[in-house]
Amino acid sequence: MRYLTAGESHGPQLTAIIEGLPAQLPLTAEMINKELKRRQGGHGRGRRMQIETDTVEIVSGVRHGKTLGSPVTLVVTNDDWKHWTNIMGIEPIEDTEEVKRKISRPRPGHADLNGGMKYGHRDLRNVLERSSARETTVRVAVGAVAKQLLSQLGIEMVSHVTEIGGIKVNPESYNGKSVAEIREAVEKDAVYCADPSATQQMTDLIDETKKNGDSIGGTVEVIVEGMPAGIGSYVHYDRKLDAKMAAAVMSINAFKGVEFGIGFEMARKPGSEVHDEILWNETEGYTRKTNNLGGFEGGMTTGMPIVVRGVMKPIPTLYKPLQSVDIETKEPFQASIERSDSCAVPAASIVAEHVVAWEVANALLEQFDADQLPRLQDNIANYLSYTKEF
Amino acid sequence: MRYLTAGESHGPQLTAIIEGLPAQLPLTAEMINKELKRRQGGHGRGRRMQIETDTVEIVSGVRHGKTLGSPVTLVVTNDDWKHWTNIMGIEPIEDTEEVKRKISRPRPGHADLNGGMKYGHRDLRNVLERSSARETTVRVAVGAVAKQLLSQLGIEMVSHVTEIGGIKVNPESYNGKSVAEIREAVEKDAVYCADPSATQQMTDLIDETKKNGDSIGGTVEVIVEGMPAGIGSYVHYDRKLDAKMAAAVMSINAFKGVEFGIGFEMARKPGSEVHDEILWNETEGYTRKTNNLGGFEGGMTTGMPIVVRGVMKPIPTLYKPLQSVDIETKEPFQASIERSDSCAVPAASIVAEHVVAWEVANALLEQFDADQLPRLQDNIANYLSYTKEF
Amino acid sequence: MRYLTAGESHGPQLTAIIEGLPAQLPLTAEMINKELKRRQGGHGRGRRMQIETDTVEIVSGVRHGKTLGSPVTLVVTNDDWKHWTNIMGIEPIEDTEEVKRKISRPRPGHADLNGGMKYGHRDLRNVLERSSARETTVRVAVGAVAKQLLSQLGIEMVSHVTEIGGIKVNPESYNGKSVAEIREAVEKDAVYCADPSATQQMTDLIDETKKNGDSIGGTVEVIVEGMPAGIGSYVHYDRKLDAKMAAAVMSINAFKGVEFGIGFEMARKPGSEVHDEILWNETEGYTRKTNNLGGFEGGMTTGMPIVVRGVMKPIPTLYKPLQSVDIETKEPFQASIERSDSCAVPAASIVAEHVVAWEVANALLEQFDADQLPRLQDNIANYLSYTKEF
Amino acid sequence: MRYLTAGESHGPQLTAIIEGLPAQLPLTAEMINKELKRRQGGHGRGRRMQIETDTVEIVSGVRHGKTLGSPVTLVVTNDDWKHWTNIMGIEPIEDTEEVKRKISRPRPGHADLNGGMKYGHRDLRNVLERSSARETTVRVAVGAVAKQLLSQLGIEMVSHVTEIGGIKVNPESYNGKSVAEIREAVEKDAVYCADPSATQQMTDLIDETKKNGDSIGGTVEVIVEGMPAGIGSYVHYDRKLDAKMAAAVMSINAFKGVEFGIGFEMARKPGSEVHDEILWNETEGYTRKTNNLGGFEGGMTTGMPIVVRGVMKPIPTLYKPLQSVDIETKEPFQASIERSDSCAVPAASIVAEHVVAWEVANALLEQFDADQLPRLQDNIANYLSYTKEF
Repeated sequence: MRYLTAGESHGPQLTAIIEGLPAQLPLTAEMINKELKRRQGGHGRGRRMQIETDTVEIVSGVRHGKTLGSPVTLVVTNDDWKHWTNIMGIEPIEDTEEVKRKISRPRPGHADLNGGMKYGHRDLRNVLERSSARETTVRVAVGAVAKQLLSQLGIEMVSHVTEIGGIKVNPESYNGKSVAEIREAVEKDAVYCADPSATQQMTDLIDETKKNGDSIGGTVEVIVEGMPAGIGSYVHYDRKLDAKMAAAVMSINAFKGVEFGIGFEMARKPGSEVHDEILWNETEGYTRKTNNLGGFEGGMTTGMPIVVRGVMKPIPTLYKPLQSVDIETKEPFQASIERSDSCAVPAASIVAEHVVAWEVANALLEQFDADQLPRLQDNIANYLSYTKEF
Repeated sequence: MRYLTAGESHGPQLTAIIEGLPAQLPLTAEMINKELKRRQGGHGRGRRMQIETDTVEIVSGVRHGKTLGSPVTLVVTNDDWKHWTNIMGIEPIEDTEEVKRKISRPRPGHADLNGGMKYGHRDLRNVLERSSARETTVRVAVGAVAKQLLSQLGIEMVSHVTEIGGIKVNPESYNGKSVAEIREAVEKDAVYCADPSATQQMTDLIDETKKNGDSIGGTVEVIVEGMPAGIGSYVHYDRKLDAKMAAAVMSINAFKGVEFGIGFEMARKPGSEVHDEILWNETEGYTRKTNNLGGFEGGMTTGMPIVVRGVMKPIPTLYKPLQSVDIETKEPFQASIERSDSCAVPAASIVAEHVVAWEVANALLEQFDADQLPRLQDNIANYLSYTKEF
Repeated sequence: MRYLTAGESHGPQLTAIIEGLPAQLPLTAEMINKELKRRQGGHGRGRRMQIETDTVEIVSGVRHGKTLGSPVTLVVTNDDWKHWTNIMGIEPIEDTEEVKRKISRPRPGHADLNGGMKYGHRDLRNVLERSSARETTVRVAVGAVAKQLLSQLGIEMVSHVTEIGGIKVNPESYNGKSVAEIREAVEKDAVYCADPSATQQMTDLIDETKKNGDSIGGTVEVIVEGMPAGIGSYVHYDRKLDAKMAAAVMSINAFKGVEFGIGFEMARKPGSEVHDEILWNETEGYTRKTNNLGGFEGGMTTGMPIVVRGVMKPIPTLYKPLQSVDIETKEPFQASIERSDSCAVPAASIVAEHVVAWEVANALLEQFDADQLPRLQDNIANYLSYTKEF
Repeated sequence: MRYLTAGESHGPQLTAIIEGLPAQLPLTAEMINKELKRRQGGHGRGRRMQIETDTVEIVSGVRHGKTLGSPVTLVVTNDDWKHWTNIMGIEPIEDTEEVKRKISRPRPGHADLNGGMKYGHRDLRNVLERSSARETTVRVAVGAVAKQLLSQLGIEMVSHVTEIGGIKVNPESYNGKSVAEIREAVEKDAVYCADPSATQQMTDLIDETKKNGDSIGGTVEVIVEGMPAGIGSYVHYDRKLDAKMAAAVMSINAFKGVEFGIGFEMARKPGSEVHDEILWNETEGYTRKTNNLGGFEGGMTTGMPIVVRGVMKPIPTLYKPLQSVDIETKEPFQASIERSDSCAVPAASIVAEHVVAWEVANALLEQFDADQLPRLQDNIANYLSYTKEF
């Protein structure tokens, strides 16, 4: 399975094509739109999030509510495009015509300067229109399709915010809870936390940061429940599923770190307190006493929940300016801003959930008989019986 | 550029084939062997590391000391193979013949159980022989070839240990130093630290842990100096170089987390203290006041040093046993051990350095005219002039 | 560079996303539309070709007439979609609702039966909507973008029909002519032949075949002029450019064979009459006395024109029925038809030209510094000087 | 599944690594060696073929005669290496030392000139050592592993020579015969023909050509029996199995054309005589009256035998010289020769068989549950029952 996304932030539309989905999967735009809405929520979003309501249209690969096995195209139209046709027009313009909102001042923390050099853009708008986090809209849409597939295979997942600007949740508040229980808590929380006791502090900090013209980052966690053991592989380094998942999380705009299970804590504990002891009983087959390793051993799933966390840097588009250099004059200036959010960590948790969903779904399709959903379901059920008795 | 590795821990040899190297690159076995030796060093290694001295032989793709452009084959012969021909023999054996050292007891923290299920191995030796960290020998060898290419392009790198079992180095001790200076400090350090004041504490902890039959992990850092800006790309999520690098680091045996620049610290700082302000002067062109982002913006290099860290879990092969289940009887037992190290973090730093080298070299070959070294050197030099004036 | 296409024959739209194009390439919808029009021409097309006029819209990756380096999305809207919303609707329908135009009768020569089995479709419309040659519309559009890139690099190409239903052109009529000259002849020819003396016979045969309710195939040739030598590679089998090009041509709907230069004739001639002797002069550098090998030696270009031919089978959608089996009743029947052309060879020549264009452009982007057009042009010009003096 | 090959013609060894094979597949060197022997046979081979007897050694991925799921390494040692250590030595030599057998005279029809330019080799031996057909030894070895897998899945195949230097076999002689019957005929034939009546003429022509210092080419056919229907896919052009197979055949040294079923004949026949009518009966399920399309519709298998043919050009290494240019002096000369065969078509048929085997095996592994042989066998058997009843 593979996909491509396309579209500029203020262009006419975002598009994604997904190739390699099984046929016979029930799929509607509604299933995707509810996730797009979650991506637009969370305390601390700027004005843009409030005026837009992203909705997806499916324009290929689905007929009468079921996938055909052929490529699925997802389109998110930009309602605001009419105001941008001059600035972002596709067709050539006269040489004499002045391009409005031309940008020659790269913002620190963004792709502006390096992207301009790479592609030869002296109007840095040509970079930022694509490097913008707006692209994550379709990555969520693509992931929502993957999640729909996973749910048909008995695999459920949730994301939640674990830290914002130094304020951490208490893991005790959700440890031992199921994905469904955590999701219930998260969905009614203003900052998508599973620990409501941290919420007020976080929203206060967000508000204060906004007032200062500053921004804050945080960490998010994704939990996947119901995975069979042995997905991924140890036989070649580039087939390790946790490594692929790390790349996916790190590829989210502004993410700078990723860890599984207790993660960087493993540098501080002896092995005897880290590894997850193996148990067996007739009802469940093999299971583990703990899940410190976050569901992975040797690049393969253990059958325990996958637990992966990522860190998001503070949004670099600040009202509080940073020093930079104008590429035309080479003169220093205080970096200009685009309208922006002061904290996008809750939204980022939704993005993380969906990029993880893609990797998990893709790994299953690679491993099993995946042309059509009924055969895939049978094949996985059969594998689960086999591993239980192994 | 791509490569495959092959070989079991106690099989006749490890092999790697690298396809896509430029022609005309000076390359000798000696250049690789010095890195293999570094991988075998570091305080805390077990007996195996001391009896083996890995050396590589080049058996294709190089003639009279220069690469041909054709695939390069690296072979590391197992000197101990003569003692393993019965246990690990390639040819079929009689059904009546008993297989010695058969393993039915999976070790927590290893690939044993999940790998056995996946591939249908009831003798778990069939898993552990490949999932063993012995494979990192050839990953280092492959990375050493990449490093040799990088050094011809003016790019230098080093790795060092930043934490072992909770004991951290002081970044002040190496901040501001060049790669060459850090390498000098590391090469004479018992645990590959750039901060000699931490060394004694670390070696003491390793010795104590060993005495307890336990194990400890830690964190390692890789620094790459001399990269042009704009390597990698923001235009599609799977072309971000930091994401590829995250996958590479996470794919090292026992690694469970990865971060760039100040990494997870970014969850705790406001944006105004995180982003790296942009400067320009005639001598250097564009540069940055700080390097908190570790050399990446928008999935592309910024021209500042790449700084990436990974966390290694404690080695799961413990003398202090963990509970597990025998797959034949389903009875619980105390997990068996293979001879092992109590701390492999210093060695892991060398592995990390080399997997990062590969990703960096590969990204350059993708972006530039890369069939032969002289044209590659010219093309990159030309790009550097261009970006300086941009 | 890579691309995905999507869309069903009677769905709302065809879509393609191209990822990896250089920035700064002049590109307009008009450049693509003129090729789509050529694809719809040629004597012998059915009614559908006449009522539709395919036009493409660019909805990402281009601004003010130049590529941005970000993914380019091409959309071809189906004007007839309003008549198909019931039959091909995306949203679920009631279980009680009858699906119209359901197909349980697979047509020999089409993907119907095998595709139905593979994806579990008992309504074979779910197969034929995607396996239809309508998809070649966007493959042509994608190839037209590649051709635009090539023309900026001094590389020109043309396709022409060399045989229809056993009537062959006389190669003497175009041998020695330039691509521009052949294009001129082809563009005014009713069946896209470069030999006008064959045209009348071909059109007569097409008309007669149509009257009989039968269909005919033929062969087409693509010629590419201006390629540098040494594109592709012999060092690994899957890097041979002629092999990739063979796959591309064979992947066109209804194509069943492909050959380079004098192709299958090589089975009948001694080596002394096949190989292309090497010459050199100061003006041109290395050149060849003949071009029997069609521009390839060792999987690499020789600098002579690339000459590749493909054979298209007669369109399987016949008015003259073939025997098949109803998948519901397992009863034999005479295969049903969809409205169709009796000969699509001229159109197929356009498709072949464009899939070849893609492979050629892609090979150049892989080999040279390809992020932006100006640097690509410089790098190739520099290589051409180098090879001339080699 | 993927593989890399490495090794120069006169280097120490050829190596291949296969990654992605199912575990539990019975595999021995002997199974591979019998195919290597067939590759070295056939009337018309030069002296080199007679002195060498290629044998493979398996050095990873197999234990006690069964695959482990980990990468399989195949090594073919060059017994003649001791005579080439000076000329082809890996280690650097003194600048003052003269390199023997240096080649500055490119041979028409070989990779010499274009490869020299591409990789910057002024000693063209650096090209020809890798572009040599010697590499096909390990491609056969790799394909032999694939064939062993296929035979465990009930799929059998054979290759035979269909034309040499204009002398064609009579298809009547083998039409309707099974793969096993054809193989029997071929194995005792001097030029690997399934039509013994053509053999004498062919061997005479080969001998006469040799006497003239010339060379001849021919065509070969590969037949695969027992494939399930629906392997490959029509949903995206690059997933068509016939297209992948075309690339594989075209990538064999000296191959210049490929066709399926009646191939280029389809340009001369009406559709009513080309397409394969569909039948059904309770014993076999769906079947076809004819197999003109060579087992493929819509890029997928039909369940009928796969029939693919390739054309090999005459070997370009002639005793009868061709004109070329010395790259040092730019002076014309009569092209030098290396010792060579006058006709390698029989050997090429074996190569074709094995590269096709790889593509077929790979397509099955992609489509089914492929980590271990028992589950793969079950999954395919289950699919066959399903398609029979479809």
